[in-house]
Amino acid sequence: MSNAVVVGAGLAGSLVSVYLARRGFAVRVLERREDPRTPGTREAGRSINLGLSQRGIVALREIGLLDALKPLTVPMRGRVVHSPDGALRFQPYGTDDDQILHSVLRHDLNVALIDEAEKQGVEFLWRHKVVGVDRDKPSVATDAGEFEADLVIGADGAFSAVRTHLGRGRRTTLHQEYLEWGYKELLIPVGDDGEPRTELRALHVWPGDDGLIVAHPNADGSLTATMFLPFEGPHGFAGLDTPARVREFLARRFPDTLTLIPDVVEQFLAHPPANLVTIRTAPWHSSTGGGRGVVLLGDAAHAVYPFFGQGMNAAFEDCSVLDRCLAAHPHDLPKALAAFEDARRPHTDVLAELSRRNFVELRAKLRSPLFLARKKADLVLHRLFPRSWVPLYTLIAHTTTPYGEALARSKRQDRLLATTTALLCLIAATSSRRLGRLVGRLIAPPRGRRQVR
Amino acid sequence: MSNAVVVGAGLAGSLVSVYLARRGFAVRVLERREDPRTPGTREAGRSINLGLSQRGIVALREIGLLDALKPLTVPMRGRVVHSPDGALRFQPYGTDDDQILHSVLRHDLNVALIDEAEKQGVEFLWRHKVVGVDRDKPSVATDAGEFEADLVIGADGAFSAVRTHLGRGRRTTLHQEYLEWGYKELLIPVGDDGEPRTELRALHVWPGDDGLIVAHPNADGSLTATMFLPFEGPHGFAGLDTPARVREFLARRFPDTLTLIPDVVEQFLAHPPANLVTIRTAPWHSSTGGGRGVVLLGDAAHAVYPFFGQGMNAAFEDCSVLDRCLAAHPHDLPKALAAFEDARRPHTDVLAELSRRNFVELRAKLRSPLFLARKKADLVLHRLFPRSWVPLYTLIAHTTTPYGEALARSKRQDRLLATTTALLCLIAATSSRRLGRLVGRLIAPPRGRRQVR
Repeated sequence: MSNAVVVGAGLAGSLVSVYLARRGFAVRVLERREDPRTPGTREAGRSINLGLSQRGIVALREIGLLDALKPLTVPMRGRVVHSPDGALRFQPYGTDDDQILHSVLRHDLNVALIDEAEKQGVEFLWRHKVVGVDRDKPSVATDAGEFEADLVIGADGAFSAVRTHLGRGRRTTLHQEYLEWGYKELLIPVGDDGEPRTELRALHVWPGDDGLIVAHPNADGSLTATMFLPFEGPHGFAGLDTPARVREFLARRFPDTLTLIPDVVEQFLAHPPANLVTIRTAPWHSSTGGGRGVVLLGDAAHAVYPFFGQGMNAAFEDCSVLDRCLAAHPHDLPKALAAFEDARRPHTDVLAELSRRNFVELRAKLRSPLFLARKKADLVLHRLFPRSWVPLYTLIAHTTTPYGEALARSKRQDRLLATTTALLCLIAATSSRRLGRLVGRLIAPPRGRRQVR
Repeated sequence: MSNAVVVGAGLAGSLVSVYLARRGFAVRVLERREDPRTPGTREAGRSINLGLSQRGIVALREIGLLDALKPLTVPMRGRVVHSPDGALRFQPYGTDDDQILHSVLRHDLNVALIDEAEKQGVEFLWRHKVVGVDRDKPSVATDAGEFEADLVIGADGAFSAVRTHLGRGRRTTLHQEYLEWGYKELLIPVGDDGEPRTELRALHVWPGDDGLIVAHPNADGSLTATMFLPFEGPHGFAGLDTPARVREFLARRFPDTLTLIPDVVEQFLAHPPANLVTIRTAPWHSSTGGGRGVVLLGDAAHAVYPFFGQGMNAAFEDCSVLDRCLAAHPHDLPKALAAFEDARRPHTDVLAELSRRNFVELRAKLRSPLFLARKKADLVLHRLFPRSWVPLYTLIAHTTTPYGEALARSKRQDRLLATTTALLCLIAATSSRRLGRLVGRLIAPPRGRRQVR
């Protein structure tokens, strides 16, 4: 039996350990921190809840954990967009009932994965800090001993120690970039009447060029809001340093947060802002002549900005793709790792770019009439031609089409849409009112879907 | 008196220590390696000689070392391009007598700078390896003790330890990329008659899409050739692993190397290829509330591919720019360091891009008739309008125009040239033979400059 050492017991590490155990590996997981199931542990600076989309769902279904997780999640059927004037607008994610996201607490999901891994015989070693990786054995040296394995997996996040050691002394590409914006998390508590203070079954977005908020619902009726602001400037985290300044800023930019979060000013000032990093690296793996190897996955291989909500989903899809590569090359680990990197890296590179672009979209375009018209046209066309016309967001969030193929397909659709729009304009400008009315009906959304439910 | 600790006694570190000493700093230089003046030391994997161009010359003149160095250098007045058929073609660098490069041994230049620094009172501490940097003091911890200073300078090269420690725990941008090509150095010895085996007062280039050689002359009549090849593939370093394969490859691609370098096959097989890395990072500096700081310069801040011959020259210009910033803010070190980074980083970012583009130029375009015609047109226009028309290469190598301004100016000239070319074509196509002859005379180079001297 082959054995594997996984570094990192976060979401990616605990999920891949389940896949490996099911494939017959003897698996040990090394984790720097305390067991998250220990009462009183609390991860600082990590986002509290996450949006599970199709790629993540498929992976959880593959390991048979999806149904057990369902009660812990809240479905999100679209976005509720909050305007500074207090107006709310609902934008459905898609046309089908399965085009929904599921909000879940990072902690709940992680514990479920660790429990499942232990059921499969995985051994977790907590409080083991990596101090070195020997990629020629391979082995992982920690402050509590050295661990040799046939397969070492670096699932230790954006600041991966495995990545650092894997890259030493060879031609390693590394792109690391921080956004000049950070974030703080704010809890929208359940109302005094025990009911949610706003629509629960949706993702909430407060767009804006100079600051934005995204909020996910929790199963207990509360929501967790993440406020993104520039670090510097009078209206950045640096300048918003007194209760008066914070209150004035929120009243002007995000007025409804003052009623949704009674202690919003205190919450805002309680913690320092967290950073947002994007990491791109190559190669992801190394192999020994003896058929062993080291490989990175998840944030260790490709940390992205959170604006497409795909960080965890991409990490889960990594685990699924790696599992398929191990199945395709059962007696050739180096080949399996090379196949994994070849199959996967081009697509996560695209995801990094898409996540960067969605930052612009969330900040500004969600309020632009032109952009909203485009979104609407996309959904109308998707309704008319459900198979052949699929908007980019739908491809990314609600399918498992590889990221790169999704982008390529969306570009083709963009070109087609430009031509179609030109033709429609021509029709509208030159032909009878009857034709105009027909076109009008095609473009208008069906009644009753514009309201926030 | 302020004191400074410089990490790295290479070209950038020893030059900046001279500047600092002249400005009144008490300077210590910490260097991991042995004193290069110790008999028997030899740096493995570093390029042996370099082309000193205007930016480097200006810095050496500023510290008063230029005249003393002149006897150690060989002037290069242009490129000699070698074709696989054995033909040689001379391309002058510029039109003026001062548009020349100077080939110099890295070792000679480094020793001259260290000697000069010691004359200025700089203390060199050899065999001191950096193990940490505390940017809040600031201080440098080495395996032989800790060194505190008002100003810490990281001049410790592309794999800078100072950079690593400076970037810890803050939002640091890092782009690190390796070329899929490496290089080996080959010595073209003096002929048996004691004379150089080829034209000495030029840079020699063997262009090619699948491999290229660049050779610099040495003062003793030998030349040092650097052969660049892909790492992988049958005609990369990996595939050229037997004397027969190397000889066959050289005979086909670089036939004259077999006569210029009698033991070329043995030299080729004697050493492993070296890597080429490009590094872009930000920020370059940190400051303390107490008016102290840490700053990177040279390769530690911006390692570039060697294809524009600007690595050392940019590092020397860094030292000169930093010195001017220190002069402009004599009592405010944090302001001086911020001014240095603001003034300098945008331009070295451009240099990284130009160095990448010149790799393409050296590989392929030097043989393209269209490209050569463009080069010629550039030089003709430069001769006609010496002040207002300056080719990009001339701006980079023979002036101190900041890199970013040089690129912007070159782009304006490109647009103008496109228009001019169109007009000339129109004239040629529509007007009398007399006008055609006039245009012909304008475009032709002056007689007697096409031969290799």
